[in-house]
Amino acid sequence: MSAIITLTTDFGHSKYVAAMKGVILGIVPEVNLIDISHEITSQSVLEGAFVMMTTVPFFKNGVHVGVVDPGVGGPRNPIVIECEKGILVGPDNGLLMPSAKRLNMLAVYKITNRELMLESVSHTFHGRDIFAPVAAHLAKGVKPEEVGEVVGQCQLLDVEAYKDGGGMLEGQIVHVDKFGNLISNLPRRALEDRLHEGDEFQILLNGKPYSVRFENTYVEAPGDEPFALFSSSDYLEISIPMGSAAEKLDIRVGDSLEVRL
Amino acid sequence: MSAIITLTTDFGHSKYVAAMKGVILGIVPEVNLIDISHEITSQSVLEGAFVMMTTVPFFKNGVHVGVVDPGVGGPRNPIVIECEKGILVGPDNGLLMPSAKRLNMLAVYKITNRELMLESVSHTFHGRDIFAPVAAHLAKGVKPEEVGEVVGQCQLLDVEAYKDGGGMLEGQIVHVDKFGNLISNLPRRALEDRLHEGDEFQILLNGKPYSVRFENTYVEAPGDEPFALFSSSDYLEISIPMGSAAEKLDIRVGDSLEVRL
Amino acid sequence: MSAIITLTTDFGHSKYVAAMKGVILGIVPEVNLIDISHEITSQSVLEGAFVMMTTVPFFKNGVHVGVVDPGVGGPRNPIVIECEKGILVGPDNGLLMPSAKRLNMLAVYKITNRELMLESVSHTFHGRDIFAPVAAHLAKGVKPEEVGEVVGQCQLLDVEAYKDGGGMLEGQIVHVDKFGNLISNLPRRALEDRLHEGDEFQILLNGKPYSVRFENTYVEAPGDEPFALFSSSDYLEISIPMGSAAEKLDIRVGDSLEVRL
Repeated sequence: MSAIITLTTDFGHSKYVAAMKGVILGIVPEVNLIDISHEITSQSVLEGAFVMMTTVPFFKNGVHVGVVDPGVGGPRNPIVIECEKGILVGPDNGLLMPSAKRLNMLAVYKITNRELMLESVSHTFHGRDIFAPVAAHLAKGVKPEEVGEVVGQCQLLDVEAYKDGGGMLEGQIVHVDKFGNLISNLPRRALEDRLHEGDEFQILLNGKPYSVRFENTYVEAPGDEPFALFSSSDYLEISIPMGSAAEKLDIRVGDSLEVRL
Repeated sequence: MSAIITLTTDFGHSKYVAAMKGVILGIVPEVNLIDISHEITSQSVLEGAFVMMTTVPFFKNGVHVGVVDPGVGGPRNPIVIECEKGILVGPDNGLLMPSAKRLNMLAVYKITNRELMLESVSHTFHGRDIFAPVAAHLAKGVKPEEVGEVVGQCQLLDVEAYKDGGGMLEGQIVHVDKFGNLISNLPRRALEDRLHEGDEFQILLNGKPYSVRFENTYVEAPGDEPFALFSSSDYLEISIPMGSAAEKLDIRVGDSLEVRL
Repeated sequence: MSAIITLTTDFGHSKYVAAMKGVILGIVPEVNLIDISHEITSQSVLEGAFVMMTTVPFFKNGVHVGVVDPGVGGPRNPIVIECEKGILVGPDNGLLMPSAKRLNMLAVYKITNRELMLESVSHTFHGRDIFAPVAAHLAKGVKPEEVGEVVGQCQLLDVEAYKDGGGMLEGQIVHVDKFGNLISNLPRRALEDRLHEGDEFQILLNGKPYSVRFENTYVEAPGDEPFALFSSSDYLEISIPMGSAAEKLDIRVGDSLEVRL
C-alpha cells in the first residue's frame, strides 16, 4: 500500500506544482500524488485553510502539503504538524491549523534540517525547495521530529470565527466553488435547530440584503433567486438555481455574510 | 496491473473531486485515478455525455464515474452500467448512456446496497457519498449485481440527435474546447460523402449565417474566418485559425448548428 | 520503481489529455503520469518551451511529452530527442529544444515506425495518435532508435533570445503565472551583477515605461506598484504585490520587456 501526499496551493495547475511533484518523485517514486486544489484564491490563507480542513479528513492517513504562502521569504517558519490521522506540511501562517484540529494535532515542528531540503533554497518558492522534499521524506518514513525542534507557539487561524448574536449571525464567505456557490463559515450545528425546509429569512451579503428560502437540496429551489442550504461540508451555502451566485451577486472569498433569523 | 477509475464531472479541479479521491483511495489504495474532465459546463448533461462517450473508449477496461447531476437529492436513481469493455457509475439522467453504447452495454443496476456507500449520505453530494465508494468497490472486485437490482428502464440521451433533411442538417454544439473550437453532434459518417477539402458551404450558428470552407487540417485554414473540419472524435467542428470561435462568434454548448450543403 | 511520463500541452485539463492518458495506460499500465501544464497559451510554442525547460529538469529521468502544435497535420515532423537525463517526445517546431539542452541532448529521431502509433492517425491530434503511444512504448523500454531514423537538422528555438546592449536589455515575457506575475526570458546570470536589492530602474513593457524597484522576495515589496525580482526559475520577473501584474498592466505572453539600468 503506497503512501499518499496531497497538495493544496494557490499556484494554479501549473509548472510550480509540477516542479514540486518532480522533487517528490525523485525522493519517493512510489508515492501516490493527489491534487486537492490549486485554484485557491491567490494569497487567501483563509480559503486554503477551509479547503484543506474540509477535504484532508477524507484521506486515511497521508502527508498533506499546503502552500498558500504570501509571506514566503519573510520571517514566518516552515512547519510540520504531526497528527493522529496524518501529517501536515506548510508555512506557519495559520493555513494548516484548522486541518490539524480535525486530524487531532499531536505536535508542531519547525523545519530546520537542511538535509531534508533541496540543496539550494530560493527566496520565493519554498513549496519546491522545502515543503515538497520534506513531505517526500516524511512519506518515505522520516519521523516528524527529525525535521527540527518542537515549536511552542504558532500562528492560529479559526476558519469558524463567526459571531452568534442569537437572532443574528455574522460570518463570511470562505469558499466559492465552480458553480458559483458561496460557502460560508457558519456551521450547520449553529443553525440546524433554527432553520427548516421552506423557512424564509434575511441575509446580508457584503451589506446588501436578500430574502432567501432554506432548502434541503438544490433540486427543490424554484426560480432564479438565491436560496440557502447546508453544503456537503456542513456549512451554510448561498446558491442560485442553474446560475452562479458569485457572479450574479458579485461576491468573492472574504466578503461578509450576515444571517437574520 | 492496477485497476483504473476515471472521473468526469462539472465540479472544476476542486475539493469536491479530491474528496471523491480520498474516499476511493480509502477503499482501494492501489487504484490508478485518471481525470477525464472536471470542466464540463455546469449542469450540462449533454456535454458530459459527449465528453465521456468520446474518451472512455480509449481506456482498456476501467470503472468510469460520471457526475453531472443537477437532480442530485431528487428522485433520479444512482446507477451502475455493466458493459463488455468497462463499468459506468453515475446518476440515471442520460449522462452514461452514450458511453454505455460505445462500451457495449450488458445490464443496468440501481445502486441500493447501503454497505457500498459512505455511512452518511448527504442530499447534495452523491459523487462523494455514493458514486466514489461504489466505484472503488467495483474496482476492488465487487460484482455489478451486488450494487442492487437490475433496472428495466432508464433515462435515455442521444448525443447524436440531429436532423438530416438531405441538403440541410440541424444539430447542436455539444462541446467547446480550450482553443474555443466548437464541436457539434453532426457525425463524420453523415457528412463525409458530401464534404470535400476546399468546399464552401453555409452554416447557421444560433441562427446567424456564416460561409465556411471545409478543410482537412487546422494548418490549411487561411485568414481569421471560421472554417469547418472533422474533429479528432469524428464530429463536425467549427474553428477560427489562431483564435477562439466560441468567443468571436459568441457560441456556447447547447447552441444550434445548421449546415446547408 | 515505475517509469514517469510527463505531459505539457495547450489543451486545457481536457478530454484530449485524458484520451492521451488512456492510450498510454493501454500500453504501459504501471506508468506514473504527471501533468506539467495544460494551460500553455494556445499555440504558444515559446511559452510551452519555457515551461518544459524550467520544469523537466526536476524529474530524475522520465519521458517528457510536449504538445503545443499549431502545425499538426502539416509538414513538420514528429520527433523523439534522446538525452542523458530523459527522453523528449513531440513536434519538431522548437518546443522541445530548450529542454533538450538542459537534459543534455544526445540524438534526435524522426518518428516513422507505424507500429508504435495508433492504428489510425488523424490529421488533427498527433498527441493522441503518435506522441502518446510512442512515449508509452519508450517508457516500456523501446529504444529511441526504434522510432525512426536520426534527423540531421531540426527546428531551433532559443527561449533566451534577448539583446544585451550594456545599459539596455531587450527580451520578452515568456510566461504568465496564475498570480499574474510576468516571467521574462532575461536570465539572472545576465543581470545579477548589475541589480541589487532596493535598486530603482526603468522598464518598458510593450513599450510603456515603468519605474520599478528590485527586491529579493515578494514580501519586501511595498504598495501596489510593479516591482522586479528573480523568479524561482532564475529569470527576471515583474510582479505587483497582492495583485495581477498581467491584468493591471495588460500584458501577455510574447509582449516585449526592455530593461534600462
